[in-house]
Amino acid sequence: MTDFVAVDIDGGITAPLGFRASGISCGIKARGLDLALIVPDTPTSAAAVFTTNRAQAAPILVSREHFDRAARHVAAIVVNSGCANACTGADGLAAAREMTAIVAAGVGCEADDVLVASTGVIGVKLDMTKVTRGIADAYVALSRSGGGAASRAIMTTDPFPKSASVEVTSERGTFRVGGMAKGSGMIEPMMATMLGFLTVDAAVPPALLQRALKAVVDETFNAISVDGECSTNDCVFALASGASGVRLGDGDFDLIAEALRRVAEPLAIGIVRGGEGATKLVTVRVTGGATAEDARRAARAIANSPLVKTAVHGGDPNWGRLIAVAGRAGVEFELSRAAVTIGSTVLFKDGRPYDEAAPQAAAYLKGKDISVSVDLGAGQTSSTVWTCDLSAEYVRINAEYRT
Amino acid sequence: MTDFVAVDIDGGITAPLGFRASGISCGIKARGLDLALIVPDTPTSAAAVFTTNRAQAAPILVSREHFDRAARHVAAIVVNSGCANACTGADGLAAAREMTAIVAAGVGCEADDVLVASTGVIGVKLDMTKVTRGIADAYVALSRSGGGAASRAIMTTDPFPKSASVEVTSERGTFRVGGMAKGSGMIEPMMATMLGFLTVDAAVPPALLQRALKAVVDETFNAISVDGECSTNDCVFALASGASGVRLGDGDFDLIAEALRRVAEPLAIGIVRGGEGATKLVTVRVTGGATAEDARRAARAIANSPLVKTAVHGGDPNWGRLIAVAGRAGVEFELSRAAVTIGSTVLFKDGRPYDEAAPQAAAYLKGKDISVSVDLGAGQTSSTVWTCDLSAEYVRINAEYRT
Repeated sequence: MTDFVAVDIDGGITAPLGFRASGISCGIKARGLDLALIVPDTPTSAAAVFTTNRAQAAPILVSREHFDRAARHVAAIVVNSGCANACTGADGLAAAREMTAIVAAGVGCEADDVLVASTGVIGVKLDMTKVTRGIADAYVALSRSGGGAASRAIMTTDPFPKSASVEVTSERGTFRVGGMAKGSGMIEPMMATMLGFLTVDAAVPPALLQRALKAVVDETFNAISVDGECSTNDCVFALASGASGVRLGDGDFDLIAEALRRVAEPLAIGIVRGGEGATKLVTVRVTGGATAEDARRAARAIANSPLVKTAVHGGDPNWGRLIAVAGRAGVEFELSRAAVTIGSTVLFKDGRPYDEAAPQAAAYLKGKDISVSVDLGAGQTSSTVWTCDLSAEYVRINAEYRT
Repeated sequence: MTDFVAVDIDGGITAPLGFRASGISCGIKARGLDLALIVPDTPTSAAAVFTTNRAQAAPILVSREHFDRAARHVAAIVVNSGCANACTGADGLAAAREMTAIVAAGVGCEADDVLVASTGVIGVKLDMTKVTRGIADAYVALSRSGGGAASRAIMTTDPFPKSASVEVTSERGTFRVGGMAKGSGMIEPMMATMLGFLTVDAAVPPALLQRALKAVVDETFNAISVDGECSTNDCVFALASGASGVRLGDGDFDLIAEALRRVAEPLAIGIVRGGEGATKLVTVRVTGGATAEDARRAARAIANSPLVKTAVHGGDPNWGRLIAVAGRAGVEFELSRAAVTIGSTVLFKDGRPYDEAAPQAAAYLKGKDISVSVDLGAGQTSSTVWTCDLSAEYVRINAEYRT
């Protein structure tokens, strides 16, 4: 990866050449933008990663079907917020299909060439009168500078929009990657969806784009956790327009993956920072795993432990909880070789505590960006997961009765 | 199981004939009883289930070793609270061994015939001067009515002692089962241990007792969750004295298992009721599983979901969260055949919501004993897990800095 330079630029998903986007309001939500369109100048190579939740929302079912039928080429993506169109039965499926058909009529393509995503309330039907008018408005509003509006139109209760874009200079030439995402914000009834959209103006064959997207999602969007939940509507789409003139082939896996990662990682971390009730970003690093899966599993267990998350919230350098969670994570773990580090302070190593260092670690925990690290003492693999602390505000937000 | 009648009686672990017990204070904790002894009149048949946490505390390692060496016969159990003797290295192992040796000297048996359990702060060494004096005092205090004191001596921050006993009348004769337990109470630094002790005055061969204990623990102590954590010190021991004259054999598995369950279940539920910050007991029932493991896994996922636990806390009949968790639990799940019931109110069935019933479910959720039920729509198996709600008080308790 010599000669790889990525520089932050403005524009989000419309920073790459060959894409227009828009975000408009059509009244699905009580206020704010609630419908976004992403339209490449010509049908592009596409990649997609879908939720593994068995209770798949209608837009997930339809996008999966279209993604396969259209042989991974996509002419448009339509996204609405405010209504997840999940647990809505046959009517919901028909509504999701109709959304793609309306977009296809405007763009001049087959419905199969359109992907759809929804986020918002579960179990409520889409108002297709509003959606139909919204898609027409969004089509008119499409522009080369629509990335910002689109990133706001996919928000539900996210405290801030999440958008990122970079210009990549490599031996293959200069191209751009853009992206936007929304996190789980459950302040309103039953909302929880992670959506991510990436655009690239290099030409990337669908199979390569899919492989790169999968690898990157595993280390970014799939490596974050606010509360361990996985929604009915989660998905990440990537489109590659080729409009920069840069053409990437199978030998460029590292380049395209790294380029996507430069956008996906800050978006993923943004979702955690915007997590419900979150006051701290926590980077959980696990080393010394016997296998890659072990390291990942232990990191996720720590990131999802309410005892760890409350300890970080309270600024308590509670190494015992980290050891206990690593021990119960179902992975190889050697207590006599294990270690716990908070920030750069070692609190447990070689089977014994270093409690004299606790005040130093407690001072560090007063910060907003926290790093905790556990060595499993069982091998050489490592894994990083980002999470947030667990606050009383999270409970307040999620315990509120919906009416 | 005809002719089986179980009647609640007083006495806890000393309700069965052939056991003496005591609970005394030796200063490990700042106040309150902190050391318990259980001594059968003669070495008894024993069974044990130990934590699966890889970070096993010293008393767990020593009890495992003794349990194997003594061929599942036990002459005494010693338990201290206030110090978990976990993550304490070679010194901790030596201390746990010494505890069994001191008890053995008093009782007149081998150290291998003594089991030991500890609960309390992780990473702090036991004060053996206090423990030695405490064991001597506890030995003197042993009595046929010591069950109550013993149940208080194993508490850390449990809000109340957990003790139960029944008299069982069956075609095999009349015998008694007693028990005590402590839950995870993490108000103080890094405490989290589930300990359970069962006594029986029927004669039960060790292999049968072990089989019955394992089966019962799976459906009681292993079917509860306060926050999904599993500690370094968890264990459940059962002793069968035979002092009632009733002798049980391999054909009596159902009888002994059911008898143990009558004591283990209220103890386990008591742990949940005493969970940190808990305001409601939540019985999670999953039906329609494709396999027994699927039903169990889905029930645990629901019981550990912070979104479900906060919704119950807030009295929100949020069926969408239950569906979403069932869908992500990694089990067979058929949305079109799935159902969600809160109390006796169906809120989702056959792929569609029944939101008109939400107010009725919300009224029900104002109670203290809540039952939620999810049908996975994938088969015939079922599973029950008990948990508690997640309150801001849980966060406050666990976020408090230890100093």
